[in-house]
Amino acid sequence: MEAESQMARGKYAADISTIKEAHARIKSLVHKTPVLTSESLNAISGRQLYFKCECYQKGGAFKFRGASNAVFSLDDEEASKGVITHSSGNHAAALALAAKLRGIPAYVVIPTNAPACKVENVKRYGGQIVWSEPTIPSREKVADRIMQETGATFIHPYNDGRIMSGQGTISLELLEQAPQIDMLIVPISGGGLISGVALAAKAINPAIRILAAEPNGADDSAKSKAAGRIIKLPETNTIADGLLAFLGDFTWPVVRDLVEDVITVEDSEIINAMKLCLEILKVVAEPSGAIGLAAVLSDTFQKNPAWKDCKHIGIIVSGGNVDLDVLWDSLKK
Amino acid sequence: MEAESQMARGKYAADISTIKEAHARIKSLVHKTPVLTSESLNAISGRQLYFKCECYQKGGAFKFRGASNAVFSLDDEEASKGVITHSSGNHAAALALAAKLRGIPAYVVIPTNAPACKVENVKRYGGQIVWSEPTIPSREKVADRIMQETGATFIHPYNDGRIMSGQGTISLELLEQAPQIDMLIVPISGGGLISGVALAAKAINPAIRILAAEPNGADDSAKSKAAGRIIKLPETNTIADGLLAFLGDFTWPVVRDLVEDVITVEDSEIINAMKLCLEILKVVAEPSGAIGLAAVLSDTFQKNPAWKDCKHIGIIVSGGNVDLDVLWDSLKK
Repeated sequence: MEAESQMARGKYAADISTIKEAHARIKSLVHKTPVLTSESLNAISGRQLYFKCECYQKGGAFKFRGASNAVFSLDDEEASKGVITHSSGNHAAALALAAKLRGIPAYVVIPTNAPACKVENVKRYGGQIVWSEPTIPSREKVADRIMQETGATFIHPYNDGRIMSGQGTISLELLEQAPQIDMLIVPISGGGLISGVALAAKAINPAIRILAAEPNGADDSAKSKAAGRIIKLPETNTIADGLLAFLGDFTWPVVRDLVEDVITVEDSEIINAMKLCLEILKVVAEPSGAIGLAAVLSDTFQKNPAWKDCKHIGIIVSGGNVDLDVLWDSLKK
Repeated sequence: MEAESQMARGKYAADISTIKEAHARIKSLVHKTPVLTSESLNAISGRQLYFKCECYQKGGAFKFRGASNAVFSLDDEEASKGVITHSSGNHAAALALAAKLRGIPAYVVIPTNAPACKVENVKRYGGQIVWSEPTIPSREKVADRIMQETGATFIHPYNDGRIMSGQGTISLELLEQAPQIDMLIVPISGGGLISGVALAAKAINPAIRILAAEPNGADDSAKSKAAGRIIKLPETNTIADGLLAFLGDFTWPVVRDLVEDVITVEDSEIINAMKLCLEILKVVAEPSGAIGLAAVLSDTFQKNPAWKDCKHIGIIVSGGNVDLDVLWDSLKK
């Protein structure tokens, strides 16, 4: 029953109707985030750029859209038992916040080696920390135990139709705020954000073009697109700590079918984009939040004749949760 | 004739009708800046805060509103001769940008000791730099010479009804975006911003309360309010380099009559507020942009029973033009 409730009526785990349902469900909970523009960045990129600033979403990242859609999709009995996840990043904090708003428990399985700031963020929103060893088997074992003990519903950070539908609400807002947009550049990690954004955007404007942006040091999506199947990497190495996940079986088909290409960028390009966000846009973007700007400024993008005619580019600034010291250290490198 | 055209019909140099005229004149030129809210900052301050982010205005500060209103108020003959000012800060850059949009020259008199970044900012928007010695007599002499040579219209950074009216358009937007606001906290320097904002806000909602925020190291407005006349200081010392000007004869009467009180804060409080803007709000604010948050968090504000009932507070984040190195150094102090 749960698997069924996660599925949309169409060929993917979400579609425009589940995204519109999500929007109706969460629009009083989420911030309608602003779209910023900058003549200076337009001049540098040679395009009209529209920055959809999800760093101004509750919790500082787009994740609250999917999390709140998932939490508020549950019926009262399911909800009363709580929700559980094992992401230690923005999803966990967003889930804790959504659960707090519904008045239900949120259990977050966190490995003992997780950064203190991420643990604090989950606690700040009232999430209940459950420690695991820093291995995937331990993490899953602990999550299973909590689910058996509590009956809590597991909410995956991205491979879930409810999550994908929640993230897709970004496109409903953005294409109303800037209907002239002819291309979207979206960070890709597990694919929850880009799949929701692509499904909604293509339903609204079938001619719109969707590009993914990914770090070279974690280019599993680029490799997956090239191979025609999900590729996982033995190791990853990038400053963009929000972009380390691999595609899931619900998100991959959307990425395969609707995402035109994956632009990979170096960490140095991400750092430069973070700096431009601070200096010119006046926005604090985490590395994964700045990668869309890095992509549009990259040679890969600028020199590709296929994208020459895309003049109005929407860029999803996915989040702003970055430790100031880390930010500064990376800008100084 | 020029003095007359600068005057509104009422007792001040601007009024709600000149502000509405300014809005009609500039609304297609300026950004309607977003209003951000943060549950975390609400919790810290004990109020509902509404951040009107003029750091997202063109040129990175509210100054473009007044500058564009002044430039587009000129008749074609006046305009063709250009405009001139001797501010080297945000006003000069804003005036250069407004002049560029109208296709007329902007002359900016800058002392030879001005910081390179400010000079660059003026050049970037096409302003014509005219150097002066770093003294007020030299600056005025050079400006007079250019005016005689070119016939350019002098646009004062704040003591001008057109400037005050342009800045007042902030209130028209903000009180539409968040009509529940019952108090505004506004940075004060020469008074162009706060006088325009106060005139418009009081016309829309006579019960709204207006507070000014000022650095302790440049507290001429607090002293002026106490004395009942314009006080100028022999010297000033604050990190808030945008708040060093003294009130003018057009702005002072509005400040005297409509501004309830001036809250002064230490530089350390401003720095803490800049940090909160970065970490929690994800916004880059210059020191003068963060001073409103510093004021609402100050003991002076928090402990004053007169303001206890103000629950919905609009804070004008006036600008975001800060050198990243300077920003970081000040955060580390």
